[in-house]
Amino acid sequence: MSSLFCQAQLYLEAHPEPKAGAFALFGAGFDGTVSFRAGARDAATALRPASIGIEDYCPILDATLLDVYLADVGDLNLPMGDVAAAQELVRKAVDELLLVGAKPLMIGGEHSLTRPAVMGVMNVWPNLAVVQLDAHADLREDYLGQPLSHASVMRRIVEQLGSDSIFQFGIRSGLREEWAFMREHHTHYPVNAESIRRVMDTIGERPVYLTIDLDILDPSIFPGTGTPEPGGEDFRTVDALIRELSKLNVVAADLMELAPGLDASGVSSVVAAKLLRTLVLGHATR
Amino acid sequence: MSSLFCQAQLYLEAHPEPKAGAFALFGAGFDGTVSFRAGARDAATALRPASIGIEDYCPILDATLLDVYLADVGDLNLPMGDVAAAQELVRKAVDELLLVGAKPLMIGGEHSLTRPAVMGVMNVWPNLAVVQLDAHADLREDYLGQPLSHASVMRRIVEQLGSDSIFQFGIRSGLREEWAFMREHHTHYPVNAESIRRVMDTIGERPVYLTIDLDILDPSIFPGTGTPEPGGEDFRTVDALIRELSKLNVVAADLMELAPGLDASGVSSVVAAKLLRTLVLGHATR
Amino acid sequence: MSSLFCQAQLYLEAHPEPKAGAFALFGAGFDGTVSFRAGARDAATALRPASIGIEDYCPILDATLLDVYLADVGDLNLPMGDVAAAQELVRKAVDELLLVGAKPLMIGGEHSLTRPAVMGVMNVWPNLAVVQLDAHADLREDYLGQPLSHASVMRRIVEQLGSDSIFQFGIRSGLREEWAFMREHHTHYPVNAESIRRVMDTIGERPVYLTIDLDILDPSIFPGTGTPEPGGEDFRTVDALIRELSKLNVVAADLMELAPGLDASGVSSVVAAKLLRTLVLGHATR
Amino acid sequence: MSSLFCQAQLYLEAHPEPKAGAFALFGAGFDGTVSFRAGARDAATALRPASIGIEDYCPILDATLLDVYLADVGDLNLPMGDVAAAQELVRKAVDELLLVGAKPLMIGGEHSLTRPAVMGVMNVWPNLAVVQLDAHADLREDYLGQPLSHASVMRRIVEQLGSDSIFQFGIRSGLREEWAFMREHHTHYPVNAESIRRVMDTIGERPVYLTIDLDILDPSIFPGTGTPEPGGEDFRTVDALIRELSKLNVVAADLMELAPGLDASGVSSVVAAKLLRTLVLGHATR
Amino acid sequence: MSSLFCQAQLYLEAHPEPKAGAFALFGAGFDGTVSFRAGARDAATALRPASIGIEDYCPILDATLLDVYLADVGDLNLPMGDVAAAQELVRKAVDELLLVGAKPLMIGGEHSLTRPAVMGVMNVWPNLAVVQLDAHADLREDYLGQPLSHASVMRRIVEQLGSDSIFQFGIRSGLREEWAFMREHHTHYPVNAESIRRVMDTIGERPVYLTIDLDILDPSIFPGTGTPEPGGEDFRTVDALIRELSKLNVVAADLMELAPGLDASGVSSVVAAKLLRTLVLGHATR
Amino acid sequence: MSSLFCQAQLYLEAHPEPKAGAFALFGAGFDGTVSFRAGARDAATALRPASIGIEDYCPILDATLLDVYLADVGDLNLPMGDVAAAQELVRKAVDELLLVGAKPLMIGGEHSLTRPAVMGVMNVWPNLAVVQLDAHADLREDYLGQPLSHASVMRRIVEQLGSDSIFQFGIRSGLREEWAFMREHHTHYPVNAESIRRVMDTIGERPVYLTIDLDILDPSIFPGTGTPEPGGEDFRTVDALIRELSKLNVVAADLMELAPGLDASGVSSVVAAKLLRTLVLGHATR
Repeated sequence: MSSLFCQAQLYLEAHPEPKAGAFALFGAGFDGTVSFRAGARDAATALRPASIGIEDYCPILDATLLDVYLADVGDLNLPMGDVAAAQELVRKAVDELLLVGAKPLMIGGEHSLTRPAVMGVMNVWPNLAVVQLDAHADLREDYLGQPLSHASVMRRIVEQLGSDSIFQFGIRSGLREEWAFMREHHTHYPVNAESIRRVMDTIGERPVYLTIDLDILDPSIFPGTGTPEPGGEDFRTVDALIRELSKLNVVAADLMELAPGLDASGVSSVVAAKLLRTLVLGHATR
Repeated sequence: MSSLFCQAQLYLEAHPEPKAGAFALFGAGFDGTVSFRAGARDAATALRPASIGIEDYCPILDATLLDVYLADVGDLNLPMGDVAAAQELVRKAVDELLLVGAKPLMIGGEHSLTRPAVMGVMNVWPNLAVVQLDAHADLREDYLGQPLSHASVMRRIVEQLGSDSIFQFGIRSGLREEWAFMREHHTHYPVNAESIRRVMDTIGERPVYLTIDLDILDPSIFPGTGTPEPGGEDFRTVDALIRELSKLNVVAADLMELAPGLDASGVSSVVAAKLLRTLVLGHATR
Repeated sequence: MSSLFCQAQLYLEAHPEPKAGAFALFGAGFDGTVSFRAGARDAATALRPASIGIEDYCPILDATLLDVYLADVGDLNLPMGDVAAAQELVRKAVDELLLVGAKPLMIGGEHSLTRPAVMGVMNVWPNLAVVQLDAHADLREDYLGQPLSHASVMRRIVEQLGSDSIFQFGIRSGLREEWAFMREHHTHYPVNAESIRRVMDTIGERPVYLTIDLDILDPSIFPGTGTPEPGGEDFRTVDALIRELSKLNVVAADLMELAPGLDASGVSSVVAAKLLRTLVLGHATR
Repeated sequence: MSSLFCQAQLYLEAHPEPKAGAFALFGAGFDGTVSFRAGARDAATALRPASIGIEDYCPILDATLLDVYLADVGDLNLPMGDVAAAQELVRKAVDELLLVGAKPLMIGGEHSLTRPAVMGVMNVWPNLAVVQLDAHADLREDYLGQPLSHASVMRRIVEQLGSDSIFQFGIRSGLREEWAFMREHHTHYPVNAESIRRVMDTIGERPVYLTIDLDILDPSIFPGTGTPEPGGEDFRTVDALIRELSKLNVVAADLMELAPGLDASGVSSVVAAKLLRTLVLGHATR
Repeated sequence: MSSLFCQAQLYLEAHPEPKAGAFALFGAGFDGTVSFRAGARDAATALRPASIGIEDYCPILDATLLDVYLADVGDLNLPMGDVAAAQELVRKAVDELLLVGAKPLMIGGEHSLTRPAVMGVMNVWPNLAVVQLDAHADLREDYLGQPLSHASVMRRIVEQLGSDSIFQFGIRSGLREEWAFMREHHTHYPVNAESIRRVMDTIGERPVYLTIDLDILDPSIFPGTGTPEPGGEDFRTVDALIRELSKLNVVAADLMELAPGLDASGVSSVVAAKLLRTLVLGHATR
Repeated sequence: MSSLFCQAQLYLEAHPEPKAGAFALFGAGFDGTVSFRAGARDAATALRPASIGIEDYCPILDATLLDVYLADVGDLNLPMGDVAAAQELVRKAVDELLLVGAKPLMIGGEHSLTRPAVMGVMNVWPNLAVVQLDAHADLREDYLGQPLSHASVMRRIVEQLGSDSIFQFGIRSGLREEWAFMREHHTHYPVNAESIRRVMDTIGERPVYLTIDLDILDPSIFPGTGTPEPGGEDFRTVDALIRELSKLNVVAADLMELAPGLDASGVSSVVAAKLLRTLVLGHATR
């Protein structure tokens, strides 16, 4: 009604309607196949109010959300026990956003949801490259017989796009077979300036899906995730990595695996909210 | 945009627009004068998602929210350090809702906000009676020199309406002076069927403001509140009390002092969400 | 190796091998279809160490676990994203225990797992009666299209056994349709001495599956559960109810929906451990 | 220095110096023999600030702490790994307080500390009776070979005073042997008006040590304790019980087993603070 | 009374009386204007017991608190809803300490309280320089109309002392306007040896107020604060920074924005306690 | 019984029986002398399920637990109030494992338990060297009169083996006397490649007891410990340190002072589980 009331909780300075050429954030609260610890279903619900704790302005980029159009179109309602149905709904949502020319920006939820999102984007951008930030390779054939598990999501995507279109950063955990795969197919890059430059040169102006499993961060700064893997990157490193990669021709992206209930201090949600700001402002100023 | 996305987080089955004759829920997240433990600022943010855990149907009343119009118009943005300004904004919000004929239903926030809400309602309904459910008398002259504190809210209201228009249930804590006042003015009633009947007969069809400080509940079932007072009422008793009182000619109401962060189990938020359902369905079936 | 080391964490005074005629406890840590809040996957992991906090002796029954054979055969490894596969594994486990004449005693996990357990028991005891303690009716046709959801478990069982074989206690939440079903088929009984007596007389010596959704308890004493429903029974009432019902010809049982991570105080796990003792000792002294 | 600063954190309205005839509260933060869950070492540190959340006035007794002299003499520094040394220090502290005529009021800490306190009081009042409120009998011969354990504290005291001088309320847990002892020696009384009256008549004007293990309360209202035992008394019952017993000739008392860190909501500390007020005001108005 | 009891909880090895030339620690538990998350009111209550976990000796400085006089004069009692009154009380407390020649050392509480403290110190030392360690610029004109908010505290101070007397370290968040101000007035310095040296040379022997907003630390090591800002400094860097700056002619200081309840692990309180030791020992050995 | 059930919770890929030449993990859940914060008693109970969250394969070492024999023989049952008896039991357990040729690998519990373990190992390997990773020197003469305290454990060991056989890394806290001792006897080494190399050269093929107090880690990554000391090492540094030192002729080892209940995020338990993997795989590939 009047301006006294703030009707919906949107991400900082975001708008409820999607717009062509602009990122359209949506929540995908599904964690039904998570093997270790659930909780990623609540990511978007926690990320939005956490964005109040940061400012709209980024001093490193000298840019503000006030100058950028970012949409926050709300949350999907996903059936927890049925991964196939959940993935189908994500696919539909991505298709719908692409139809109006928006850039889907999914807030997971477990990483398995990246598969249908990539499938939808591939349909529009067949030449798609996928850049993955993650602690885990996610290259398993299957997990306890389940081919749609979060532990297999990149394997499914490789099957679609080929290993030449996959660029992985930050991996520090996997089966022996997954590491053999990465070594054989050269999909994994160390997090340093030189390899970032090399990946960006290789990709050039190809359309990019940027998938960020937030557990690339060290659990010291990001304890709120289902499968924390010690030995990760610190905040400044990941922030800079996203700032660089956002200069690519990103046509869709996601931020996955924030499980806010596992971090009672609330810091993990603020970290996710700030990295999202970096992605949006970095891309806007490319 | 499409129906895939759920744009705003509203209370269970509620509608974003206020309507004449219907309750209009709004969040008032202010806890700036709380002396013991803050946290009530987050009440509405927690109550809405907690409402997903209960059903729309109440078997005791044999009624469902699907048959009732309930508005959820969003949250006020209140300045934490300035109680006078915050109260002014609550007053404006209540006035605005009354103007369209809606029944304001405030989700606090600290109890001090009841004062401006009652002032707004009194302006439209001069014959107003106030029914208070609470553990604390809230009848102090002032608190550390602050006359607008939560500990003085009912004293301020008595000064406006007179002690004959105030009906208190559940009080079990206060200064010696507050108890003397209650004994002298007969404002306090024990929680039993007979006194409920007596109060309802006395009030008759007068317009009623029903203010519920949720700490009337025993802290065993409602630990998520700033000033828990052991020895309170159990859930069934308070649920029945609200069910009865909702049959009055309630023209405005509030649910105050849920501090969700103090109850990590999340139960307190569900309790508040369920009592709100009782109030709305009870009143709808009067 | 030597007796210095305590090899496995078993429930208080339990034995690792199943035995004919004796309860055989096993953990079924699946919560993949839980809609509101997950966490029941960790029930057995928390219940076993919590049993250390109680004694082997029950003064009300004047009986001790030292005189009873109780098996604790360990945990199932269930695939989180695949409810059908998980239910298949529960069915196999129950079949295996029944084959050696043991009485399956499942520690859930979400309530949906009761369906395959009942199916297995029915196969051996076609004349089976099912007694349900629960806050929720669990009689939905389906939940978001998923027929195997926890919200539909009793409906699936009714389809197999008929409504005459179902006896429900403690229900206080459900859809209007579920309540209509209960009223039409007279499956629901109030928690009082008279109706307990009536149910026990009706069942007589028929074999019984006793399924206990621990959320029958009020959240004040049992906050550690996925869908807390205020207004429930206190501990003494549920303890006495189980003590009575354990005198039936119980051939299998379960304790479901303990989500220990949601209760940081650890009390919910102790409550579950003590009710399990009541069930085992009550049945042993029938 | 000036009155601007509040130098020490004392219990509500208490004075730093002991006085003849008045209770002298002191903290005894030892939990070194606790078998299940530690944490009682922090009881006094949490109880004092929690007392701010309640008022000085009790409406049931119509009395206020402002009219009563209560001393809060600070905390003992007890060596965690050495139960004998810790008990020796408690004994010294009690002796010191008795020497000035004060009534020792110990805030535990684990229940084992009651033994040296009773020994000290017995020395001055040989005709001492001990009234115990507790969930656990604490009558074991020893615990894992340790005769000074909290699980044996009442057995040690019985050995000194004889079973005729021991009066137990609220016990609901123990070994078969402990229950046999209680049945044989008639030391245990149910919590009801009649048995309270009987105990009080029996004791008459004998000097009394009142030892309150706070786990007599149901864990719903008092989760913050090392060994929560479901099925306990509610707050009003225990509050009334203490109010009655405080009318005895209490010469010393204790409040044991608050483990505040186990109850993140802070309610348990407030409960303890309020029961302490009941004890002090009840005794003052006898 | 006797030495058995430890009367007051003081910071490690501190003395209750202020002394000329020595730091005098006091708690200022006010967080009434905090916009994001309250909790700083409990800083001093948590910091004191946390100091028990560290030693009196610092191996880097080869100095011990046993050789230094540090006063801990207790806590102010500040009215939560009235920022002007709270600031007035802080001003009085600072004046009182300065009168006896002590160096005020405030434990916040929200950063807004630094304004009245600086005002008091300025009165005695007109040539005052202010060195700020902080994540946030705190240079806003006002916040939601409130000029005394924590977000404006440095702006108010600049208005008094001029921008030449302000030296800021660690800022990584602010409005575009605040960054423009810092760039224009050169108030902000990077955290490195060279700029520290430069600031110290510039200040020379001028009297210094050192204000430390603990959120200069990265939230990985300091999650217990109201507005955590990812990308901050690690412990060793801040510890060294304070060690250096303590060599200045510090006449007053503060440690602000510890909100201990937001960090359930208790680490944040220990961090604050250790940095306070560095400040005191560093200054003592200058 | 069948392979459906997973009987005992063992560490990832471990076997229940000890074997000559292989590490034999056992839990020693004692924290009875802990002065600051208890909780280390629960270390092994939390570490085992946390190991599920990491993989069996280490990409840095290119080795997997599937190729290594690791025993997990269960937990000791230690009497909490009697440190001498607890140490005696640890000694017996170590003796028993050494008798079958296994390498004891203790999961503490408080650091005091390292003394009896070293005594047992010394008996078999008189030429033993002890390498300590720790934040605290643990070189006190005694603590509050208790010579068996965790704060004195290394002093006791030095008395047996001489200071030439002790090699300390990571110490950053201690009394002035402890630092004097370390400086005089050159027992402490900085954590860098050169000093690691020097220590390893000095030790050569001597048998080594490697004792790891996990608080060597910075509390940002390891908050779950009784005495967190800010300013510690990050995960990668400690992981590399253990990887190097595991190449020594390690005949026994321990991982002490994980207090899982103090880190609600669960990260500390995962950190401990991963460092244990590094130790086992590093040693296996030496």
